[in-house]
Formats: sequence, structure tokens, C-alpha cells
Amino acid sequence: MSYSAGAPSVLGSLRRIESSRLFQTAVISIIILSALAIGAKTYDLPDVVEQAVLFLDGAITVFFLLEIIFRFAVYPDKKRFLLDGWNLFDTIVVVGSLIPLDNSEAVLLGRLLRVFRVLRLVSVVPELRFLINSLLKAIPCMGYIALLMFIIFYIYAAMGSLFFAPINEDLWGDVAVSLLTLFRVATFEDWTDVMYETMSVYPLSWLFYITFIFLTAFVFLNMMIGVILEVMSAEQNSREAEQAHRERDDMARKLDEVQQQLSSLTDMMNRRLPAADSENRR
Amino acid sequence: MSYSAGAPSVLGSLRRIESSRLFQTAVISIIILSALAIGAKTYDLPDVVEQAVLFLDGAITVFFLLEIIFRFAVYPDKKRFLLDGWNLFDTIVVVGSLIPLDNSEAVLLGRLLRVFRVLRLVSVVPELRFLINSLLKAIPCMGYIALLMFIIFYIYAAMGSLFFAPINEDLWGDVAVSLLTLFRVATFEDWTDVMYETMSVYPLSWLFYITFIFLTAFVFLNMMIGVILEVMSAEQNSREAEQAHRERDDMARKLDEVQQQLSSLTDMMNRRLPAADSENRR
Amino acid sequence: MSYSAGAPSVLGSLRRIESSRLFQTAVISIIILSALAIGAKTYDLPDVVEQAVLFLDGAITVFFLLEIIFRFAVYPDKKRFLLDGWNLFDTIVVVGSLIPLDNSEAVLLGRLLRVFRVLRLVSVVPELRFLINSLLKAIPCMGYIALLMFIIFYIYAAMGSLFFAPINEDLWGDVAVSLLTLFRVATFEDWTDVMYETMSVYPLSWLFYITFIFLTAFVFLNMMIGVILEVMSAEQNSREAEQAHRERDDMARKLDEVQQQLSSLTDMMNRRLPAADSENRR
Amino acid sequence: MSYSAGAPSVLGSLRRIESSRLFQTAVISIIILSALAIGAKTYDLPDVVEQAVLFLDGAITVFFLLEIIFRFAVYPDKKRFLLDGWNLFDTIVVVGSLIPLDNSEAVLLGRLLRVFRVLRLVSVVPELRFLINSLLKAIPCMGYIALLMFIIFYIYAAMGSLFFAPINEDLWGDVAVSLLTLFRVATFEDWTDVMYETMSVYPLSWLFYITFIFLTAFVFLNMMIGVILEVMSAEQNSREAEQAHRERDDMARKLDEVQQQLSSLTDMMNRRLPAADSENRR
Repeated sequence: MSYSAGAPSVLGSLRRIESSRLFQTAVISIIILSALAIGAKTYDLPDVVEQAVLFLDGAITVFFLLEIIFRFAVYPDKKRFLLDGWNLFDTIVVVGSLIPLDNSEAVLLGRLLRVFRVLRLVSVVPELRFLINSLLKAIPCMGYIALLMFIIFYIYAAMGSLFFAPINEDLWGDVAVSLLTLFRVATFEDWTDVMYETMSVYPLSWLFYITFIFLTAFVFLNMMIGVILEVMSAEQNSREAEQAHRERDDMARKLDEVQQQLSSLTDMMNRRLPAADSENRR
Repeated sequence: MSYSAGAPSVLGSLRRIESSRLFQTAVISIIILSALAIGAKTYDLPDVVEQAVLFLDGAITVFFLLEIIFRFAVYPDKKRFLLDGWNLFDTIVVVGSLIPLDNSEAVLLGRLLRVFRVLRLVSVVPELRFLINSLLKAIPCMGYIALLMFIIFYIYAAMGSLFFAPINEDLWGDVAVSLLTLFRVATFEDWTDVMYETMSVYPLSWLFYITFIFLTAFVFLNMMIGVILEVMSAEQNSREAEQAHRERDDMARKLDEVQQQLSSLTDMMNRRLPAADSENRR
Repeated sequence: MSYSAGAPSVLGSLRRIESSRLFQTAVISIIILSALAIGAKTYDLPDVVEQAVLFLDGAITVFFLLEIIFRFAVYPDKKRFLLDGWNLFDTIVVVGSLIPLDNSEAVLLGRLLRVFRVLRLVSVVPELRFLINSLLKAIPCMGYIALLMFIIFYIYAAMGSLFFAPINEDLWGDVAVSLLTLFRVATFEDWTDVMYETMSVYPLSWLFYITFIFLTAFVFLNMMIGVILEVMSAEQNSREAEQAHRERDDMARKLDEVQQQLSSLTDMMNRRLPAADSENRR
Repeated sequence: MSYSAGAPSVLGSLRRIESSRLFQTAVISIIILSALAIGAKTYDLPDVVEQAVLFLDGAITVFFLLEIIFRFAVYPDKKRFLLDGWNLFDTIVVVGSLIPLDNSEAVLLGRLLRVFRVLRLVSVVPELRFLINSLLKAIPCMGYIALLMFIIFYIYAAMGSLFFAPINEDLWGDVAVSLLTLFRVATFEDWTDVMYETMSVYPLSWLFYITFIFLTAFVFLNMMIGVILEVMSAEQNSREAEQAHRERDDMARKLDEVQQQLSSLTDMMNRRLPAADSENRR
């Protein structure tokens, strides 16, 4: 904050540059170019093109490095720069790209980090950043139901490897492999092959699969409905309900005022027109 | 109730222990440990580790036994302890774990009951118990549509085994096997293999599969929509609608009061200011 | 109607029997028994049991015949009996069951009609009948979108058999077979096998499949959303909105009355208290 | 506009013909006939029938040509005829059908354009045209989430071809092929075959597939919910909320009037009944 207050006009104009539409567009273009370069490298290219792509890759790395230094330079509170998740992510990806690709051991890690440069698109385009944040918000309301789903999977996996391990070691060998097999069954991927195999030993094992599919489908359906309801009640109706509530509140207040006005009018009448008879109420 | 009323302070403090957060956390940790032990046993482990897991298993069994005795001891109305579904389930699982694993015949049952110990997580964590209860509540509103779905399956299974049994005994041999085959078709699992086989004999049998898929998909879709609507109308809108209704009620009552105030004011006027002319209404 | 009016008390008591809970339960039980008999016949049974099932089948046929004659006898307006869809369906199924099973030619038809006896459950249980009626009501609002879906399928089928017929005659031979293949692709059933085959000749044919999947998924999604919205707006909110509207109406009427009361009070005041000054409004 | 104003009565009556129900029905019938002819040509037909179909095809082409000329003739503003997307589409399809089918090179294109004649059904039936327009309107609100989905696909495709290209060149050879393979995984089409193959080299590669499936399913689910909410808030509730808002507005206005009436009544009282004491409020 103190930096920002005492910043010379140079820093101010740099900041204007950083938040300008032109700068944003340039960064986005470079990221897309970087994505294309990553894609291009997966093809068998003639030597000349490969050299060009390699040069382009180097240029993009330098650009990203300069960009992150520039953004750090104009950031008001330097200490907090890396505390922002997006900045931290950007820095790791950019610094990671500096690993030389000649070194045969780190080459795969270096390439992987180059792939993650595409994710920088999310950190740069505000709409995508907003979308990710709202997706992340939808996760907690799935928490306990995901736990329940995992318990179902775990119990079936333990049962599966208990009974079926001798039948097919590859599918039911241990609890981890069984979990993977059950996930396969849950996606309906050749699940009858798995079932027919165990049914040749345990003819009733179809019960295992059918109950598993019904349970997971049922719990998943409820999770989906839960999320839809959660999002709906939170987001959509609230504004209209809020407005309706406010309008009704307004009316209730006005009614109170009317009642007060009437009371004071009646009081006034009572005082100014003395009762002519004794049957006077109030 | 009489127990609870005459309980010494020892029982009271035991009860405080039972419902304390620390005790709950300890039980949950032991259940998770038990789940991990079950998972570990599905791997080929060195002898030492296997002995350790076996010892751990015994320790967990003893802990669960003590825990259930403790919970029974502090339960106010002993006679009703087993009438609560969760308690009954816990007791069966824990007592079942006492079956010695050396006896080769009962070993599988004993292991199965050890697997179900993971389900105790549901009976211990209140949020999961609440979730299960609300899932169970969603079942009845699926009742008749599930019956309809079964009728569709049964008719197609009977037709299938009537026509296709000679073609493939394994898929259409009897009505039970046909039901399983139709469930497979409903999950789109290699359903064209089943169809192409019967189409080589009955070229029009694609009608059988297509109508079946459309019927089940259509009924399933309607079931899903029905459940969504059921849950929505029951849960979400009701609170807002309730509030709106209450607020409108308040206003209606205030309006009544205003009308009454006005009436009494008019009455008063009528009495205190005698009519000067005969055209006086009321 | 004239029948019903002049009916002797015998007919009246018959009608009470027909609509009694006991009679309904008996009919439902017989239908379920009939369904079980149909299922049983798909198994290889010992001769004695098979004879018993055959006898049971005959008994059920006679029961159903008597039941339909009985229901016809107590039906008020005999001429309209068959105009009701459910009655017509019942009669056809029951009369069809009279085809002797010895005659080898009609045996399959006779068996098929026996299978459809299970559907009588729908026509007898009122809740299922109501469910079917409400499902039928959901169909029209899918009309044009189903037509659009068919147009998409037809165009892709025509294109498919135009280009791919020489590659695989079984999958793309003519427009009908292509429609079936596309339905298979839409259910994701081994669709990549179909695609890889055509891609070996037309490397760009993945475009055909991807666009088809996206189009059908997109249109299907919109159809589903459309149906959900249709059902929701029609069924659920209307009651609450109706109530809210009625309550607001009540309040508006009360407010009108208040205004009228105030007007007449003001009028009265004006008449009884002659204006002391000339600046009197109204 | 000037054309329309100065049009002779001949043009007017032509226009009445063009918009008449009979003319529309005729055009729709011919389009359906054309679709049937396209379908018929995919079958092996006897020579006579094939000749008939060929003749029919010619007749339909001539009819469509006359129809489009006719519609152009009666169109008020000739210059803008082709600016309407549907007219442009119709013209291209009809003119394209004039390509002679003898020329072996253009024959496929000519046939393709004949297939697209079925799409003219959409441009002729107003309900389908409306449906398409409303489907097109649903696309933009999927924009950013589709972009996010593509980023996820691209990153996984790049990672996939980086690691798995040596394992299976056909599935992971370059980034485009990898995208296709990932789309296959997203549709659950034999995705375990793909996974088991890479797991034999990288045992942990199941993480790649599971995270990919969870991410795409999660984002897709959110997209679906988003679209449902979008459509709902836009279409359905608004009318009821609008009505409720208007009714509440009415009431608020009436309350204002009541307050004003009361104020003026009180004022009047104050003026005409001079205060008897000093404790008079207002």
C-alpha cells in the first residue's frame, strides 16, 4: 500500500499498460501461440520447421519471463504477490520452463511444464478465472455425498478382491485394482465381460454388479439433483425473492404508517370533539 | 426412562464421554484404520506386516466390542437399544467379527462382516446418517415408476426368451437370464452384439431393441424429472413461499385492523357529530 | 344410462363386487400368478411341474374370460365398453389367449398374447394407469424436436450410405441399416470401431461422427431441458403462484374498501363540518 | 417496400398463393418425397424402379427450381432475398442439384446436395425454423465453458502424445489423434482398453484417465446446470414474477393514495376543528 501511495508516475503508467486491453490481448495471443507450438512438436516435422518451433519456444519462454517480471514490478504489495494462487501458478510454470531441454533427465518435466503454459489462459482471461472460481465453489456441497460414494466403492472393492481375486488377478488382485475395475463398471465399460467371468464361478455374482450399479447411479443422481437445487436456490430465485420481500416490506411499513396516522387522527378527534354520550369507546 | 432418572453421576459422566467430540473422533479414526487393514489384507504382504495387520485386526475387534458395550451401558432405555436400526446393524457387525478366522468354513463370512465395518462410518458420522435418511426418503416417490419399469423389463424378457432362446441359450435361456441381458442392453453395453446375433435369424428384431431402449430411456427420464420436481417442490421453494405467505398474511391482518379502526372512527364521528341533513349514509 | 337406472338390485350388488378392494386384489394376484407362469415356462421343468403350469395357464385363461364377461355384464353402457382403450386391450389379450397352443402355427402368437397379459397389471392398478396417462401427455411437447432429431439422423444416414456403403455393406448398405448404425453411434456403442473402419478410407470421416454426436447430444439435451421446463411450469409452481395471486387479490380488494371507507368518511366530514375557510380541497 | 406498394393485383394474388396452406403442404410433401427418393437410391433396385426414381429426382429438381424462382418473384425486396440465411441455403441447395449426375467427378457433390434437400424441411416448416433459432440462441451461454472444456482436452492431449506416443502411435501419435482418443475416453467407449495399454508401461497412468474423466464430467455437469438455469430464469419464472411485481406495485400505489387521503383528511380536521388544547401534534 505504501509502495502504491509513493509510486512515481512511471509506475502508474506501467500499471496502466499492464491492465490495458492491448497488453492482455498480446499475452493471450502469445499463450495461444505457445499452445500451437506444443501441438506442433507432437508431429514429425521437417528439420527447418522444427528449428523454427524450437526458436519460437525459446522466444515464448523469454516473453513469459519478462511478462511475469513486469507484472511483479507493477504489483503494489510485492510480499503478497506469490500468495495469490494464480500468480504462484504462473511463476512456477514460467520458471519451470527455464529447465534446459538438452538435459535428458529433466526433459520430460520441462515439456510437461510447457504443456501447463496453456493453463495460463485461464489465469489471464478474467471470464475463465471467474468460471473456475465458481466451479470450485460447487465442490464443497458435494463433499459428504462424495465421501458416501467412496465408502460404497471401497466396500464393494474389498468384497470384490475378497471373492474374485482368485478368478482374475488383473481385475480384482488387490483393493486398488478392484476400485479401478469398479470405476470401469460404473462407466458401463465392458462391465458384462467382468460379470460373466465371475458368474462362471459364483453364479449369483450378478447381484454384486446390479446392486453396485443401482447404488452408485442412485447416489450420483441424488448428488446431481442436490447440486442443481443448491445452485438454483443460491443464485437464481434469490434475486426475485429478495425483490418480492423488499416490496412486501415496503408495503408493511406503509401500512404501519397508515395505522399510526389513523390512531393519531382518532386521538385528535377524541380530544377535540368531547364525547356526547357515555358509550364512547377508547 | 426410570434408569436415566435414577442414574448416578457416574453414568452421567459416561454419557458425556460418549457424546464428546474426542470420543467420536477416536471411533471414526479406528473405523478408518479398520478399513485400511481390510484393504491391506488384499495385498501380498511380508510375514511380519501380515502378523501386525492380524494383531491390529484383533485389537480393532476388541475396541469395537468394548465400544458397543459402553454405548449399550450408557443407553437410557436398554430394551429399545436394538430397535434402533443403526444400533442393530453395529451390533451384528461387531458380534459377527468375533467369528474366529481359523475355522475355514466361516472364514469368508467373518471377512465379509469385517468389510461391513467400514459401513459403521455411516452410522457414526451424523452428516452421513442424515444423508442416508434423506436418500431413503427419496425412494418411495419412485415406487410406481419402478414397478412400471419392471413390468416393461419383464414383458421384454418373456418375449426375448420366447423368441431368442434357441439362438443364444446363454443370453436368452430363461426369463432371469433375459432380464440380465436386457439390463445390459439398457446400459448400452455391447448391445449391438446381442442385436446383430438375433437379427441374423429375425431380421426385424432391431424393433425389439429400439423400442425397448426408447421405452426404458423415456420412462427413466420421466422418473428423473419426477424426482427432481418432487424434491424441489418439497424442499426449496417451500421456505420462500412460506415466508411470502406469512408476510402477506401479516399485511392482510394489518389491513383488517385499518378497516376496523376506520369503522370505529366513522362510528364515533356519526355519534358525536349529529347528521345535519337526512342524506346521511349508514 | 337407461340400463343403470332400471338395473335390478342384483346388478347393483354385482357392481359393488366389481369395484370392491377384494375383487381388485384377487385380479391383481391372478395377473401376477400369470406372469410367474409365463416366466416358469421359459425354464426346463420336470414333466409334473410342466403339466401343473399348463393346467394353471388354462385356469388363468378361464378366470380372465369370466372376469371380462363379468366386467362387461356390469358395465352401464354396453355399447361403449370397447371404446375405452383399456377395455379393448383387455378383451383382445384375453380372447387371444383362447388360441389353442397345440396348433403349431398360431402357438407363437398365443404365447405372445399370454406375455401381454402382464400388461393387464397396468390396466387394473389405477396408479399405473394414471402414470401411463401422464407419460402419454409428455409426448406431444417432444414432437417437433423429435422430428428435428429424425431429420438429423436421416441426413447423416443418407450421407453415410452414400460414402461408406462400399467400405462396410453391413453397417452402411442402405439408409435403414445406416439409421441403425447411427443409433448405435448415438448410444456410444463401439462407435470408434465404426469410425476407425471408415477413417482408413476417408481420413477426415471423424468429422462425420463428431459432428453427429455433438448435434444429437445438443438437441437431446435441449429436448430434456424443454421437457423439464414444460412439466415444471405446468405442474409445480402454478399452485403456489395461484395462492400468492389470490392472497394479493384479497389485499387489493381490502385496500379498495379502505379507500372507499375513507372517501365516505371525508364526504361525511365535509357535509357535517362546514368549511371554515375557502382553501378547502375536494 | 416500394415494390410491394406498387405491385399489381397479379403479384398480390401470387403472394397469397405463396403463403397459402395448400402451397406450403405441397412443398413439404415434395421435400418428403425427395427424402424418400434419396433413401430409395441407397437400395439395389430393379432397373424399372431405378429409372422411375431417376425421373422423380429430375421432376423434384425442376419443381424446387420453379418454387425458388416463384418465391424470388413474389419477394418484396429482391435485393435482400439472399441476405436471409434460409433463402440463401435453399438457393444453394436447389442450384447445386442442377449439377448433372453423369459427370463422374461432381457426382458425389451433386448427391450430397440432394441429401441436404431434406434440410429444406427445416426452412419451410415454421415451427422447425423457430426451434432452430431458439437452439442457436442457447449456444452463446455455453461459450466460455466450451472454451474451458477445450483447454482441458488440449492439455490432456498434449500430455498424452508426450508420454504415450511411443506406446501406441495410432491413438497418441500427435495432438489431433490424441484429441480424438480423449473424446473416445470421454464417451466411455472402450476407454479401459486404452488405459490398460498405457498402464503396462506407466502403471500410474490410470491417474491420467480418472482425473480426465472427473474433470470433463464435472465441467460438463456444470455446463448442463448452467444452461438449465439460464433457460429457466430467462423463460419461465419471469412471467409469474412480473405479474406478482405488478400486483404488488398496484397495492403500493393504492397504499400511497390511502396515506394521502388520510393526510388530507387530518389536515381538514385540523383546519375545521381548532385545537382545544396545546398538546396538539402536527
